[in-house]
Amino acid sequence: MKQVIVARRDLGMGEGKLAAQVAHASLSAYQDASRRARKKWQGEGQKKVVLGGDSESQLFELADKAETEGLPYAIIRDAGHTELEPGTVTTLAVGPARDDSVDRVTGDLPLY
Amino acid sequence: MKQVIVARRDLGMGEGKLAAQVAHASLSAYQDASRRARKKWQGEGQKKVVLGGDSESQLFELADKAETEGLPYAIIRDAGHTELEPGTVTTLAVGPARDDSVDRVTGDLPLY
Repeated sequence: MKQVIVARRDLGMGEGKLAAQVAHASLSAYQDASRRARKKWQGEGQKKVVLGGDSESQLFELADKAETEGLPYAIIRDAGHTELEPGTVTTLAVGPARDDSVDRVTGDLPLY
Repeated sequence: MKQVIVARRDLGMGEGKLAAQVAHASLSAYQDASRRARKKWQGEGQKKVVLGGDSESQLFELADKAETEGLPYAIIRDAGHTELEPGTVTTLAVGPARDDSVDRVTGDLPLY
């Protein structure tokens, strides 16, 4: 079981901003998961991997794939109080789910 | 309501590593919070702030303060598969809780 969070590298987010957006996506996708998937993932140490994306459209395409695969996921838009324009899509989290299921969605992306 | 995550700057974590550790702390402290605190925080947009810490001992001191204040919190140790020694303390999350309660614990720290 794992959760993958894809964060946009093209936005030039600062480290703290990036971390907060990744955390936001992680928690939101967790809430979208079944009780069973949550428990299994946590029992295995809640593995998380942060990958790099390049654009808003890419994040939406990956979200569509996650939807098609029936996986929990969440797209995060920034509230825009600080670095970014309000409503900017920053991150997508997929899972917790089986490793191979998540890889079918995000398998080609590089580490952030 | 807010949640503050304190991450160690002295470890030189890469951006993706940092983000994953912050997400781990965020979710763990969320699970330590009451149902009521969770719902209130989420209703307000789950505000998260990432601050910088300097040492393991500092994170433990802050965790003690959170405990004394009766706030939800979580200390994260890295599993050590990649950048860090196994068991390295990387992050502390405090909250979700009222802003002023969290500030009593982490108020003096700089943004990460």
